Amino acid sequence: MPSPEAVKPMVGTTVMVAPKHLGGFAEACLEKLGFPPEDASILADRWVWAARRGKPTHSVIRLVQVAAAVREARVKPKVDWSPVRQRGGTTLLDARDGYGVIAGARGMRLAVEGARQHGNGVTVIRNCDNTGALGMFPGIAIAEGMIGMAITNSNPIMGGWGGARPLIGNQAWSMGAPAGKNPPLLLDMHLAAGSLGTRRESAASGTPMPPGIAADSRGVPTTDGKAALDGFMLPMAGYGGWGIAVMWELLTGVLSGGMFLEDVGAHGKPQSERVSLFTMALDPTAFMSAAEFDARVDELIDRIHASPTAPGFDHVRVPGETGGEHWNRHEQTVPVAQADLDRLKPLAAELGVALPLG
Amino acid sequence: MPSPEAVKPMVGTTVMVAPKHLGGFAEACLEKLGFPPEDASILADRWVWAARRGKPTHSVIRLVQVAAAVREARVKPKVDWSPVRQRGGTTLLDARDGYGVIAGARGMRLAVEGARQHGNGVTVIRNCDNTGALGMFPGIAIAEGMIGMAITNSNPIMGGWGGARPLIGNQAWSMGAPAGKNPPLLLDMHLAAGSLGTRRESAASGTPMPPGIAADSRGVPTTDGKAALDGFMLPMAGYGGWGIAVMWELLTGVLSGGMFLEDVGAHGKPQSERVSLFTMALDPTAFMSAAEFDARVDELIDRIHASPTAPGFDHVRVPGETGGEHWNRHEQTVPVAQADLDRLKPLAAELGVALPLG
Repeated sequence: MPSPEAVKPMVGTTVMVAPKHLGGFAEACLEKLGFPPEDASILADRWVWAARRGKPTHSVIRLVQVAAAVREARVKPKVDWSPVRQRGGTTLLDARDGYGVIAGARGMRLAVEGARQHGNGVTVIRNCDNTGALGMFPGIAIAEGMIGMAITNSNPIMGGWGGARPLIGNQAWSMGAPAGKNPPLLLDMHLAAGSLGTRRESAASGTPMPPGIAADSRGVPTTDGKAALDGFMLPMAGYGGWGIAVMWELLTGVLSGGMFLEDVGAHGKPQSERVSLFTMALDPTAFMSAAEFDARVDELIDRIHASPTAPGFDHVRVPGETGGEHWNRHEQTVPVAQADLDRLKPLAAELGVALPLG
Repeated sequence: MPSPEAVKPMVGTTVMVAPKHLGGFAEACLEKLGFPPEDASILADRWVWAARRGKPTHSVIRLVQVAAAVREARVKPKVDWSPVRQRGGTTLLDARDGYGVIAGARGMRLAVEGARQHGNGVTVIRNCDNTGALGMFPGIAIAEGMIGMAITNSNPIMGGWGGARPLIGNQAWSMGAPAGKNPPLLLDMHLAAGSLGTRRESAASGTPMPPGIAADSRGVPTTDGKAALDGFMLPMAGYGGWGIAVMWELLTGVLSGGMFLEDVGAHGKPQSERVSLFTMALDPTAFMSAAEFDARVDELIDRIHASPTAPGFDHVRVPGETGGEHWNRHEQTVPVAQADLDRLKPLAAELGVALPLG
């Protein structure tokens, strides 16, 4: 039973790069692509975060996509980030087809400022393209000693409960909190019962999928990958997962004044995805001292780790543990696949930026 | 595939009682039991809410439990509700073994006040006995035109991921939002893959349980109800449900400075449960006008309702729909089972309060 947050081992040659070199490279490329220095720095910082957490697919390799999206005018590199509305710790932003990772990071920074002053802060953002790995945003709160939460809506891939067509997105979300001696807690998940790849693999191989993952074009649950490709994914935990998906749609697309349900675009299409993001920060020091909070989170983690295990398990894991261990091992240098550098080479040459070489 | 929020039909004779008579009865009894008038009114109001939503098991019949708990000094009727800490919209309360429904309602009221001023508000409360049906708390936010969320931790009934003993609670939680012409959205769920009753029924009948619901005493998943009674419930959605359970423990027992994991007591034991509650309110008018928000929530619900259905479904339901329909049908009178009135009769006589008769 693998945990869904497992860090995938990198295949092929890996180059070890200092975080500041990797970030500097990304920042320089982004500026050449027309991003203002502050936004280039914000995005590069999140990509370095992803590399250090063991999520290379959400790191600098995304430059290739971003460059294409900017050139196709799907993503706007220059965005007026002035709040649409603000009350206390609460802010509404319109990303105006800006890149979602920048939008979410700016949103969480505002939420953290709000939390510092008012105990908690919420930023809701509409019209974002590509929100990346959702853990990137609580990661910002954690670095400031706060609890963070982020939710995105996305293009419909799941059916409603008893529905016959894709109606709602995978609704990725993440929540995290700092700890003391342990790596921070960081949950990063989506709401579909399985990954989209399961359908494709089953359709290609003819091997049935496990039950409860997908439905056919009439909305009837199926284990046949081919039938499922014409249908949709089912929510995890049945009606419960569907219910959470609806509430996440409310906190994102509805509350942001942006797109919801079928109006949300798909990734990789000519138009911006126009997803919405909900980001929240909660300051533990509104409740107790930072030292006491860190100690209590450590106690929670330590007691879970010390609890007896079932056959085949060496300990009970907590959310974010694998990524946290990767983070701790890669303070000085982060692994970048040579294959990713090869893919980035033409863009780097074109923009006149030297590839990072460790 | 029944939805978990289904309203159970009442068996036997039902008496139709005006909400104010039901509430007045409960309030009078609670005052006689030593609750201050304001707390008696708060609790009676939530019990009437439960009756009107079609949740009679969380309504005035609970007086029997509350009376016993007060007499056994497990629940303190008089609590100093002064905040332990407060910053902006954020409050920490200590219920000091007070009744959880009062604590949660007071917490949500403070969160609503916080949200009115700062956009959002959070109250975390430790040392509560019996938090009732979690939807009661978002119900308060909804009545004020706000989005509400509530989470409780509880005594361990679920194992950790790969664990061999009950480690964490069912972590009931609820989230809701007002709509315009439609009933409000209201999700009310827990995190175990099935109900505790499933194990007992399977153990008694010998019929296997569905897979994925429970594990035996070694932590190995089982469909044998007898083996599961010595083991524990599994989280919904596997590792995902376990991850949410840990984050909910963080927002409740850890952040409140209260009890967490095995230190949380069970319901019906001689000691207070000492659960913790997280309540949050978010004011949509920090983002748009109330009319626009209501219209957008209606659009979300209407589009879901209008979407094509799978065979056997008449429409795709949204969270809280069944309870909302019950609510709309019972503005003037709410159904109370004669059997419940019969059970309340000795207590009412003892306290010198007349039973409500419609």
